[in-house]
Amino acid sequence: MSSRKGDRLERELVNMLDDVGFGVLRAPSSGSATKRELPDVLAGNGEIYLAIEAKASGRNRIYLEEEEVENLLSFAERFGARPRVGVRFDREDWFFFNPVNLYQTDSGNYRIKKEKALNDGADFYELIGISQQAELTD
Amino acid sequence: MSSRKGDRLERELVNMLDDVGFGVLRAPSSGSATKRELPDVLAGNGEIYLAIEAKASGRNRIYLEEEEVENLLSFAERFGARPRVGVRFDREDWFFFNPVNLYQTDSGNYRIKKEKALNDGADFYELIGISQQAELTD
Repeated sequence: MSSRKGDRLERELVNMLDDVGFGVLRAPSSGSATKRELPDVLAGNGEIYLAIEAKASGRNRIYLEEEEVENLLSFAERFGARPRVGVRFDREDWFFFNPVNLYQTDSGNYRIKKEKALNDGADFYELIGISQQAELTD
Repeated sequence: MSSRKGDRLERELVNMLDDVGFGVLRAPSSGSATKRELPDVLAGNGEIYLAIEAKASGRNRIYLEEEEVENLLSFAERFGARPRVGVRFDREDWFFFNPVNLYQTDSGNYRIKKEKALNDGADFYELIGISQQAELTD
């Protein structure tokens, strides 16, 4: 994410992970020479390691380029982290997908509809390994 | 590291880790608003995770502030990585220390002498879990 709004939302995600005890590193901004094929956010807590590509939209769909997803998968595999695409639609929470479960268009790019995110995406607690169900019944 | 030379040497270290199959992320530069208490380099290969504070010097001693080392230890513990201080003296290889083995001065800061680094520091292969000894005898 590179816009000012995207930057703010990415910091929101960093802070959420920080608040639940993760060590979190953001990649240098996209314009930087040191940005190779890096995820937006890298987080770990000694048990779970997450490489996250973060996307926000004021519309009802979010698109990712094929290369973006391939780079995420490649980095996550090398580093030893779970690859995740985090999507944030206006006035909604963050939802997360394993890239292998994303819909790929004929052009090779990936598309996430807002409805799909709310129905099928993992919420923040699932992302960090806490079952929401368990929370409610405990 | 923030100087141009420091930046070049930090990239050297990133490339070395990259070459042996690690996923590597550099923290945003020190001047950035997003640089909280982050290590210079974060690397993983699915087995070993490393949080590295990198220091270079043209002299015979390298100093680290107490806070710098505390931040490294704290981040590494949260993230689930091995904390390491990497030192690079002119015309020498990189050597690495677990911060707990560094000499602390009366003022609380840490000091690494070049001679100590060459004698007692772990070399790059030890850092990444390959015993140099094993390499030679294999």
